Amino acid sequence: MILRDPVHGLVSFETTELAIVPQLLDTPELQRLRRIRQLGLSSFAYPGADHTRFAHAVGAAHVMSRFITRLREIHEELPYWQRVTTERARDAVVAALVHDVGHGPFSHLFEAALPEGPRHEVWTRRVIESPETALHKVLVQIDPGLPARVTALVRGEHELPYLANTVSGAFDVDRCDYLLRDAHATGVSYGSFDLDWLLRSLRFGVPDSPTRAPALAIDGAKGLPAIESFTLARHFMFQQVYFHKASRASDYMLTSILARVRQLVEDGTRLEAVPPAIVSIVTSGDASLRDYLALDDGVLWAGLTAWRECADPLLADLCARLVARNLFKTYELFEEERTTEQEEALLGLARSIAKARGYDPEVYVGLDRAKDVPYDDGKDTLRVIFPSGAVRAPADVSFLLGRLRSQVVRRTRLIFPDDVRREFLAARNQGAS
Amino acid sequence: MILRDPVHGLVSFETTELAIVPQLLDTPELQRLRRIRQLGLSSFAYPGADHTRFAHAVGAAHVMSRFITRLREIHEELPYWQRVTTERARDAVVAALVHDVGHGPFSHLFEAALPEGPRHEVWTRRVIESPETALHKVLVQIDPGLPARVTALVRGEHELPYLANTVSGAFDVDRCDYLLRDAHATGVSYGSFDLDWLLRSLRFGVPDSPTRAPALAIDGAKGLPAIESFTLARHFMFQQVYFHKASRASDYMLTSILARVRQLVEDGTRLEAVPPAIVSIVTSGDASLRDYLALDDGVLWAGLTAWRECADPLLADLCARLVARNLFKTYELFEEERTTEQEEALLGLARSIAKARGYDPEVYVGLDRAKDVPYDDGKDTLRVIFPSGAVRAPADVSFLLGRLRSQVVRRTRLIFPDDVRREFLAARNQGAS
Amino acid sequence: MILRDPVHGLVSFETTELAIVPQLLDTPELQRLRRIRQLGLSSFAYPGADHTRFAHAVGAAHVMSRFITRLREIHEELPYWQRVTTERARDAVVAALVHDVGHGPFSHLFEAALPEGPRHEVWTRRVIESPETALHKVLVQIDPGLPARVTALVRGEHELPYLANTVSGAFDVDRCDYLLRDAHATGVSYGSFDLDWLLRSLRFGVPDSPTRAPALAIDGAKGLPAIESFTLARHFMFQQVYFHKASRASDYMLTSILARVRQLVEDGTRLEAVPPAIVSIVTSGDASLRDYLALDDGVLWAGLTAWRECADPLLADLCARLVARNLFKTYELFEEERTTEQEEALLGLARSIAKARGYDPEVYVGLDRAKDVPYDDGKDTLRVIFPSGAVRAPADVSFLLGRLRSQVVRRTRLIFPDDVRREFLAARNQGAS
Amino acid sequence: MILRDPVHGLVSFETTELAIVPQLLDTPELQRLRRIRQLGLSSFAYPGADHTRFAHAVGAAHVMSRFITRLREIHEELPYWQRVTTERARDAVVAALVHDVGHGPFSHLFEAALPEGPRHEVWTRRVIESPETALHKVLVQIDPGLPARVTALVRGEHELPYLANTVSGAFDVDRCDYLLRDAHATGVSYGSFDLDWLLRSLRFGVPDSPTRAPALAIDGAKGLPAIESFTLARHFMFQQVYFHKASRASDYMLTSILARVRQLVEDGTRLEAVPPAIVSIVTSGDASLRDYLALDDGVLWAGLTAWRECADPLLADLCARLVARNLFKTYELFEEERTTEQEEALLGLARSIAKARGYDPEVYVGLDRAKDVPYDDGKDTLRVIFPSGAVRAPADVSFLLGRLRSQVVRRTRLIFPDDVRREFLAARNQGAS
Repeated sequence: MILRDPVHGLVSFETTELAIVPQLLDTPELQRLRRIRQLGLSSFAYPGADHTRFAHAVGAAHVMSRFITRLREIHEELPYWQRVTTERARDAVVAALVHDVGHGPFSHLFEAALPEGPRHEVWTRRVIESPETALHKVLVQIDPGLPARVTALVRGEHELPYLANTVSGAFDVDRCDYLLRDAHATGVSYGSFDLDWLLRSLRFGVPDSPTRAPALAIDGAKGLPAIESFTLARHFMFQQVYFHKASRASDYMLTSILARVRQLVEDGTRLEAVPPAIVSIVTSGDASLRDYLALDDGVLWAGLTAWRECADPLLADLCARLVARNLFKTYELFEEERTTEQEEALLGLARSIAKARGYDPEVYVGLDRAKDVPYDDGKDTLRVIFPSGAVRAPADVSFLLGRLRSQVVRRTRLIFPDDVRREFLAARNQGAS
Repeated sequence: MILRDPVHGLVSFETTELAIVPQLLDTPELQRLRRIRQLGLSSFAYPGADHTRFAHAVGAAHVMSRFITRLREIHEELPYWQRVTTERARDAVVAALVHDVGHGPFSHLFEAALPEGPRHEVWTRRVIESPETALHKVLVQIDPGLPARVTALVRGEHELPYLANTVSGAFDVDRCDYLLRDAHATGVSYGSFDLDWLLRSLRFGVPDSPTRAPALAIDGAKGLPAIESFTLARHFMFQQVYFHKASRASDYMLTSILARVRQLVEDGTRLEAVPPAIVSIVTSGDASLRDYLALDDGVLWAGLTAWRECADPLLADLCARLVARNLFKTYELFEEERTTEQEEALLGLARSIAKARGYDPEVYVGLDRAKDVPYDDGKDTLRVIFPSGAVRAPADVSFLLGRLRSQVVRRTRLIFPDDVRREFLAARNQGAS
Repeated sequence: MILRDPVHGLVSFETTELAIVPQLLDTPELQRLRRIRQLGLSSFAYPGADHTRFAHAVGAAHVMSRFITRLREIHEELPYWQRVTTERARDAVVAALVHDVGHGPFSHLFEAALPEGPRHEVWTRRVIESPETALHKVLVQIDPGLPARVTALVRGEHELPYLANTVSGAFDVDRCDYLLRDAHATGVSYGSFDLDWLLRSLRFGVPDSPTRAPALAIDGAKGLPAIESFTLARHFMFQQVYFHKASRASDYMLTSILARVRQLVEDGTRLEAVPPAIVSIVTSGDASLRDYLALDDGVLWAGLTAWRECADPLLADLCARLVARNLFKTYELFEEERTTEQEEALLGLARSIAKARGYDPEVYVGLDRAKDVPYDDGKDTLRVIFPSGAVRAPADVSFLLGRLRSQVVRRTRLIFPDDVRREFLAARNQGAS
Repeated sequence: MILRDPVHGLVSFETTELAIVPQLLDTPELQRLRRIRQLGLSSFAYPGADHTRFAHAVGAAHVMSRFITRLREIHEELPYWQRVTTERARDAVVAALVHDVGHGPFSHLFEAALPEGPRHEVWTRRVIESPETALHKVLVQIDPGLPARVTALVRGEHELPYLANTVSGAFDVDRCDYLLRDAHATGVSYGSFDLDWLLRSLRFGVPDSPTRAPALAIDGAKGLPAIESFTLARHFMFQQVYFHKASRASDYMLTSILARVRQLVEDGTRLEAVPPAIVSIVTSGDASLRDYLALDDGVLWAGLTAWRECADPLLADLCARLVARNLFKTYELFEEERTTEQEEALLGLARSIAKARGYDPEVYVGLDRAKDVPYDDGKDTLRVIFPSGAVRAPADVSFLLGRLRSQVVRRTRLIFPDDVRREFLAARNQGAS
């Protein structure tokens, strides 16, 4: 199979080793990812951000095949039983391909809104391991042990730490693909980094014990810019896309909508167009795999469209706003306002305004706390190995990473309807004068 | 309003002249375009091709604002009543923004499958002119004459031929945007061309009459590469994307599905999930604007999903295949097979095989004739004006365009299920030996 | 060795097989290419076109290493004695690296101006085979047969036709690199093509005889766009860069300057700053390798600078004009003017004007005939092989190549000083009226 | 005039306002910049880095014309006497075009090596103001006051602080062009930033006094990523290109060569091929403008080539090494070695080794201290203005700039011949064990 990908150009899965990839792509479970947007509602903010989890899955598998190529360029320094065999290569590419197969509609939002249900990682494992899925059947036809090995790899577990790193680590294939893909689709050029150079910079680290294979490491000073720029690309994407005010506001609205649906279902209120999986999760904390896999962006959007005319005024109003892209607005809190006291005071002020205007203050005013650690030195076990043999932590030898080490970025915002926001701003300015 | 676009980078509509653009973007009629993919089912062939008509509408308006900038750089050679006034600029940008607002689900497929209904151009006019749409209300609030002027422009009619050209002509803003956008999303780099150079090459032509403003022309030898590469970009996109075998096969399948739905509706067969607009069009040849605008890709996809389990086995089978991306295959006819006789013979052979295998041969075997004229010298009234004052047709001075002048590209294919195709190939080879 | 290249990104020569590359790059013969611009005087027309033959040599070697990778992906269908051994791979990469090592200053101009001297291919062979060069020493240290094999390859001769094709053929590594590099440096985006896709499209053709390895071929319909876009990229670069009027005019001037220098040397006129190699070539038809290799753009430019103040007024004037970029202008002849009669008449007119203005008409007025065949079907032995096994000529199955097949592009221009051109134009217009 | 630029694409100077640009480009003083590489000897490290100061001058003028366009979009908020008049626009574009006209060969190296001579800023002023230059003549023909105004602007002085900022400030046109151009030519993609977004983010700041025009400022939160990415692009270029070990080593060698030439000239030693300007500067501390402008990379390279065979063994050896790209190697000092004591000790060790091997230790061993402040909060007077009216320093509101604020990057290296380096490393390792 040979494909054109807007991010990676020519993508091919043509070797015997990877003959399983086209077979997996033909399963309904992977095809379903065509109907789930990678960035949820972010196309409200970035009109080009309509790319799907399907394209990302193909991209992640492609990046993994490039990692494998690199690992094989350097694995001769390892004992032969620690090298990338055909089986290991195939396992890793399959893991990259299916790592997100359990995602619900609008990606991360669904599980956040229905926390009583299983998380997407659980669904991914079920899709891989359940004998009823076509995906499972393709896997076991190749090798009965494949589902279990793939599940483990998706969790970042493998006898070879370096292979586990590529599926789940600081520079794993998931991040490598989604950063480039999200940057390409949004047009936020800052999100790019040099994948070729990153791959070339990979080498094996020093093993923890003589019997264990090493983790991945970075090759000397030449490799530093690769991880610096990767780290910054990720930071820029967080600041500009994942934390974008319109994205956060629409996420907040969708979460409120699903919370309201849950409540109505719990209360036994009649409501059309509620997908069976949601009813199951709300009433029993779980759903059948078949019902879950029937969910996608389109099904949920059909719900939003229908609920605009439902009997519950709150749900109807929220859905009407979201479908019409009449989004809530935000007010960002800066340094001095980010004390718990200040946050409470501002939230209180906004809610009292909302209440006076006839809104349910708990639903119509939210406090959104987003947080990221651009370079988490504690978590990152990656080491830099110099020609002299010296082994250093990246933040010890990189000017940039040294300055970012374990620093926390916070974005805190009030989220509310435009009219509440306007009155809130007026009240604040009055208070200030 | 300022946006990031993956194709054009920074897109802004900030001048007073264009203050109407953000207002129009907020209408439900334009927001609906977020739910209609620009390339219909082409993402089956190109996994990145999920971009929407909404992004294209914004892009076309942006390209128009760049055309306006160029026209104003050069319009001082015209009498003042032929120049780009504020009103004309706004009219043109609005026309670019809304030119596709009447498209149905999966873009061009819908109207092809239901030919008794109005074409998308009619729906576009209705959306613009109907007092019930939010879009119309925004337009008349600015100027009661705006809807009529915009409708005329969308049809390519304007007192200034050069302005009409930009909305509907060989190098209009529609083509400029969709070629670049489709190339970006599919990863087919050949589809790019140099928009900056094309814009810079525009100048005014020689007017037909002393009282009439001139049409657009190309500025001497420097401008030729711009139109050559535009023409070739378009040709490459046709060959590789618009005529891609998987696209044509899935289009054929969707058309067959809608034809079957029409027949069932005509016959009065009970069928769930048929959108009201389709019922209306089938039964009365038209639909209400409200019903029509309720159509989008998601609504039709919900139908396809539901019909997999309907009572009609033919419809159920076609829908099951399409939803699972189990697409029909193709057999392309080359030069010597493209006589009417040969075509009939091959189609007959394929249909007899299909019939023997239990398929309805009229539905399961199709002959697809695609055709394009990469450089239609007859239609193209664009002229090249040399510094000496000489005026020439592009094909007279361009080596490439001279070779392409009025040449026709044809792609003719049989479309059928994979098993029929295999038997067909075996039968042909036997016949050949 | 690992390098950043603006065209190919990461370039590495790190395998044992290619350990010879860094050694060769360190020789003075290859380092000299840093001082020879790839496009001669074209930076007069394109301010970015200052890239050197050194960067091109590295790029061509890199592209060859990519060809080798592709050939090895597919060579298992060949008998083992026809495959890409380590030795053959190294020979091919070395040939790509050194194929231009014999070029004189300003690339092709030097040999055109001094036709009595050896051509650059001869100098290339001498550099490779002469025991006095460092390059030769590196080669023989690896293998005494290497210089002869490399020389043969550079001439396009090898027992494996497919390998010879890569060094010298329609899509050889030389063209692949220089088209992309010239496009990158000039900013003429039309000159790009999809190298990844081209490489992926390569397969082995049908051998001429059972004992002979096959030539390269293109893999079915998927490969056609790769060669179409390559062919068009080359055509665009010819039209816009290699045939650019300012390039052709400055080439003409430099050729005239060298012709004058030759004449003065022949006449025994005293002239400073004439490089010894030129004196030798003029007086004896050849030069020592040492003298030849002392030539580079800087040495010749030092001559031009010095000759501005020499005693010969003609040489002084031409050099003063060229150094100050006070270039001759051009008048392009179109279709109807391109008969031999018309050309003679126009040349005669221009020369009589020049003479009347006190110029030497033979030197100050030239007729420049440039010519290219964008797709030479006769020369191109490349075949397209379809999945069915059918073998076709590209122009038989490609719409574009079919239209270009053996068509000739001609650009014919008069070249003369600006004042002559102005009078010439005035005379023509008068004649016309 | 219309040009293709590899960095900016289409570059045009066609308005009446900018009619002076093509005239200035035709002067010998600007044409000379074609023969001075922008990055000195960096093409030793990056084979594509052969771009010239001429291309940069054109690029800087183009960026200035884009700044002007932006300033005019927003200058209506200023009193009319503070706006960008035709004269001011022309002055600024001319200043951008000629700001580097006084550079010597290999850019910054020349003045560093001959510190007794005038600096390049002085030469720039002389070229602009001296009645003998063609450039001056073009300027005064337009307006006798132009040379003085341009000189002031190049120094960053203008009655409008915002205009002075664009010529000489944190985000001036010089930096904007050279970062993008150096990134393009070296292939270091990290050096790119989003110029469109940066320009769009510019607005006017708050004036210091009611009678004074404001400086430039950045428009709220949207503008922050533009200056963040600009700052990081610059940092990456410093780390990877301007501080590259091979660049620093070759700079050190060329400086040593010129120092030796100076000494020989001072001593009255006979030496061929010393350009007159160098003799003048060494003997009198200055040179004639004519002699200075005769200097370029080629002239100095001719010297290096000739001096390989001069009588002074030290000079001959250094030149032979540099011409053959047999560069000195480096040893980088990390954190704990960067105390004055440690540096002295390591330098002493290296020099004693060099001496023992017969080298002049002062010449053959150097300590190179490179230093940069990626974000100098003290110098940067740029402010961010929020929609609320709040004015903040960028580092107060940007997570990244906050972490970089006034931080110093240091790169300290020993520079010495390869054999000295090897013995030095061995001695160190022995000492360590």
